[in-house]
Amino acid sequence: MDNLTQLINKIKENDASLFHKDFLLTWDKSDDELKLVLDTADLLQAFYRKNLSARCFNSGLAVSQFRDNSNLDEGKSQIAHGETVRETSNMISFLTEIIGIRDDMFLGAGHTYMMEVGKALDDGFKEGVLPQRPGIINLQCDVDHPTQSMADLLHLKHWFGSLEHLRGKKIAMSWAYSPSYGKPLSVPQGIIGLMTRLGMEVVLAYPEGYGLIREVVERAGIQSDHSMGSFTIVNSMEEAFHEADIVYPKSWAPYHNMERRTTLLNNNDQAGLKELEKECLANNARFKNWECTEGMIQMTKDGNALYMHCLPADISGVSCQQGEVSASVFDKYRIATYKEAGFKPYIIASMMLTNRFEDPAGVLEKAALTARKL
Amino acid sequence: MDNLTQLINKIKENDASLFHKDFLLTWDKSDDELKLVLDTADLLQAFYRKNLSARCFNSGLAVSQFRDNSNLDEGKSQIAHGETVRETSNMISFLTEIIGIRDDMFLGAGHTYMMEVGKALDDGFKEGVLPQRPGIINLQCDVDHPTQSMADLLHLKHWFGSLEHLRGKKIAMSWAYSPSYGKPLSVPQGIIGLMTRLGMEVVLAYPEGYGLIREVVERAGIQSDHSMGSFTIVNSMEEAFHEADIVYPKSWAPYHNMERRTTLLNNNDQAGLKELEKECLANNARFKNWECTEGMIQMTKDGNALYMHCLPADISGVSCQQGEVSASVFDKYRIATYKEAGFKPYIIASMMLTNRFEDPAGVLEKAALTARKL
Amino acid sequence: MDNLTQLINKIKENDASLFHKDFLLTWDKSDDELKLVLDTADLLQAFYRKNLSARCFNSGLAVSQFRDNSNLDEGKSQIAHGETVRETSNMISFLTEIIGIRDDMFLGAGHTYMMEVGKALDDGFKEGVLPQRPGIINLQCDVDHPTQSMADLLHLKHWFGSLEHLRGKKIAMSWAYSPSYGKPLSVPQGIIGLMTRLGMEVVLAYPEGYGLIREVVERAGIQSDHSMGSFTIVNSMEEAFHEADIVYPKSWAPYHNMERRTTLLNNNDQAGLKELEKECLANNARFKNWECTEGMIQMTKDGNALYMHCLPADISGVSCQQGEVSASVFDKYRIATYKEAGFKPYIIASMMLTNRFEDPAGVLEKAALTARKL
Repeated sequence: MDNLTQLINKIKENDASLFHKDFLLTWDKSDDELKLVLDTADLLQAFYRKNLSARCFNSGLAVSQFRDNSNLDEGKSQIAHGETVRETSNMISFLTEIIGIRDDMFLGAGHTYMMEVGKALDDGFKEGVLPQRPGIINLQCDVDHPTQSMADLLHLKHWFGSLEHLRGKKIAMSWAYSPSYGKPLSVPQGIIGLMTRLGMEVVLAYPEGYGLIREVVERAGIQSDHSMGSFTIVNSMEEAFHEADIVYPKSWAPYHNMERRTTLLNNNDQAGLKELEKECLANNARFKNWECTEGMIQMTKDGNALYMHCLPADISGVSCQQGEVSASVFDKYRIATYKEAGFKPYIIASMMLTNRFEDPAGVLEKAALTARKL
Repeated sequence: MDNLTQLINKIKENDASLFHKDFLLTWDKSDDELKLVLDTADLLQAFYRKNLSARCFNSGLAVSQFRDNSNLDEGKSQIAHGETVRETSNMISFLTEIIGIRDDMFLGAGHTYMMEVGKALDDGFKEGVLPQRPGIINLQCDVDHPTQSMADLLHLKHWFGSLEHLRGKKIAMSWAYSPSYGKPLSVPQGIIGLMTRLGMEVVLAYPEGYGLIREVVERAGIQSDHSMGSFTIVNSMEEAFHEADIVYPKSWAPYHNMERRTTLLNNNDQAGLKELEKECLANNARFKNWECTEGMIQMTKDGNALYMHCLPADISGVSCQQGEVSASVFDKYRIATYKEAGFKPYIIASMMLTNRFEDPAGVLEKAALTARKL
Repeated sequence: MDNLTQLINKIKENDASLFHKDFLLTWDKSDDELKLVLDTADLLQAFYRKNLSARCFNSGLAVSQFRDNSNLDEGKSQIAHGETVRETSNMISFLTEIIGIRDDMFLGAGHTYMMEVGKALDDGFKEGVLPQRPGIINLQCDVDHPTQSMADLLHLKHWFGSLEHLRGKKIAMSWAYSPSYGKPLSVPQGIIGLMTRLGMEVVLAYPEGYGLIREVVERAGIQSDHSMGSFTIVNSMEEAFHEADIVYPKSWAPYHNMERRTTLLNNNDQAGLKELEKECLANNARFKNWECTEGMIQMTKDGNALYMHCLPADISGVSCQQGEVSASVFDKYRIATYKEAGFKPYIIASMMLTNRFEDPAGVLEKAALTARKL
């Protein structure tokens, strides 16, 4: 029984289904649903590495919507906003199987918007406007970044051998200094919202004032209890890195500043925005020592923790004067971070496939048989 | 005999052919040619709803060209313009099956340009530059908007049961107030240029001074005579809506203002353009009562006419303070307008298919057989 | 034995292989490798003209990267530049078969960049980041423009009957006047770097001061010796055109000015750039008589040389007041230049195919058999 068959059987034995379910937040999915995504991603990678065609769509569109400031309907009333969402959602969906949405700029906006789109698509399908209800995949919102965190998890699974091997491993999700400002919170939130389900020892570290959205933090706590792992918040990078198996040093903006920024942007208050940026950069600068240096890595398990990053990283002396990680540390782990990133296309493809096909393993099994005959 | 087979047979019984004929104006096509497009669109929709692949192209490109101000070769001599059209038309066509062109900004420019492209492609094919003569589809010009009007007609056919059921139905194509300025005339022209062929009672309504291109209006009159319908122009929305089965309230700019605008744009006269906009908006404002309200709908047949719009509509109190349609009327017909829009992709696909294949029904019949075997 | 079979056999008899070899410079390729590209392009054209599908990719991406000023990492240190190249090259390559790069703005930058990308891809593949090593195709760099020169050569092959028929033919690659400034050197360099290998009499003509990169000029000399042709540089368009079989009048910027421009751009010296432009245009204006007129064509072999251009040309009295070619000359050869351009898509497709398949003729033979069965 070869590798493909093993993977196909593993997926078939999994009773979970993501058929016609949007993928917005990892914590809305069951463990088995997450495993379905991971295993299908592995299978797609195996197809690609064997040069087997995994083509399963003969028609249909995948649409990407990247929302930013200009889409924000500034000054628009709530009713006008709702009308636009309903109309746009239906107009882009007549022949569409999947809509990927990225909307990470404004706290309170991204996830809410994706839910609104989902509701509009439900109505459009129910009313007979749409021949099918397209699936939605969250490509990054204000709350979660599931394609990133799931790619990160798949990387960890391969690095340590299995999901089971992650149990008891210590992961430090740590704030790190960056000379830039306003980086979203979705990566650290995605990490603590996912890794606390694996029985891991999850430590979240940040300077006072750089906290994350309360709901995600609370959920991380509950999940770590449930998975027999742990979840701790500390205000010291050193403490987080101590004996860690994995470190994820990454800058983000403080939650309350992101809220102020959203208000200022909605009011188009340019002076206020300038002032806020100045304040934030000055505040950031107090924590320049939050850098992942060789010395910091020395504190980790056997001085050899796995370094992770969603890329691009702010590398001291390379992409900036001083940043999240020293050049020598990054250099050592560059290839590992590239591999980490390399799981993302398969995760996204897996989310698309499991959304559109009731029996994804069967579809790929058939594709494999056809491909082999050729 | 199932639905697919019935549709295929219906198309096969139609002797008309659009093979290698550009689709620029509906009134250049025979009734049977229009039916061919409608029926093929129905067939493509049936394929999609049955999840059957209607893929018939294995290679070849479809190119969309959206011309606006910046393409207008301002100040360019006619000879330079001609050289550019010839070169561009050939350069984008080496592997191209279909060119869709949208050029609706300037009176006298759009249709003329599409004819020039057609001529350049004829020459390129004749001279052996192009291995095939790509087909041109008008995605909106200054004169007609055939993909919209044909989608509208397909919507009416489904709403009322058949083309025959449209005979004697009253449709009010009415100007409506909008706070914006310079909307093209191609939608109302497309509607009167098509619906007068169906034996309908077509009423065109607008405030004095908001007339359409003379040639289209004349043609609408001739066609309504020929189809035993009627075509009337009135200066009252009320009169148009009275006992109407269908209403299409939609803003457009007065023809003579569009002419002035074209001249000003060609001269790059910014002050003149500002002045014209001011004048136009002031003039528009005199007709704010041209709004499709509940009261207006009450005047229609059984107070229940079908409301149509090409979207997006200017909805009073939603997308603008006061506009073409009241929020409650739009709300009642929102789903109907989405369905109306939903026919457009199939109409465009049908125009592509009938242009490239001599026997479109045969091609799709073969595709259906192959798909069923899978 | 039909035309397809003949072409397939011709390719099979050629022992050369471009499998997994980047196509950056024609002079890095053997004569047989160039013939492989030309013959495969011919075969692809034959497929297209017979309406046979030459589809051979079931998955995989082709990525185009167009680098300009904004990508130039101004002010970036060399180490930061290297990091960006490594990361970008890998991130765009996870599912990618071919990367086409155009980078022709800065002397010393384009070819160097493509080599860096190649190195980064080699590393990524070796380290297991990339499941395959994507091929690179040079879509125009500071040194060569192989997709253009190879399309030009294929045009000549068809025009004169065979590559053998080109032996002894005189081609005049001549500078010509243009009112614009800063046109790249890659076309003339590509032409002299390729045509000197065919046993042709290659004459390069330009006003004093408009020389090309020394290495390419030297290579052209060596190649012409080797191919028993000739390579001459003259400072007179008349001399170059005298008894020429082929003329290629085309403007370019003087090499040393391009070097000054690169330095000024790197320093973001706007005043210096303005000054340089003024100087260059003034200098250009001294050579307005370098125009391909009827009189100039009269000097060529039988007054009937083949005129070539990569398009768009600066046509006197059409696209500019005075330019590279007179309107009447261009008019006579318009169709020929369109045909010349028409070979480019097949050349690019051929470069992709020969890079990805070890046995391109076998792959297309199989495609032909399948297509015929349908």
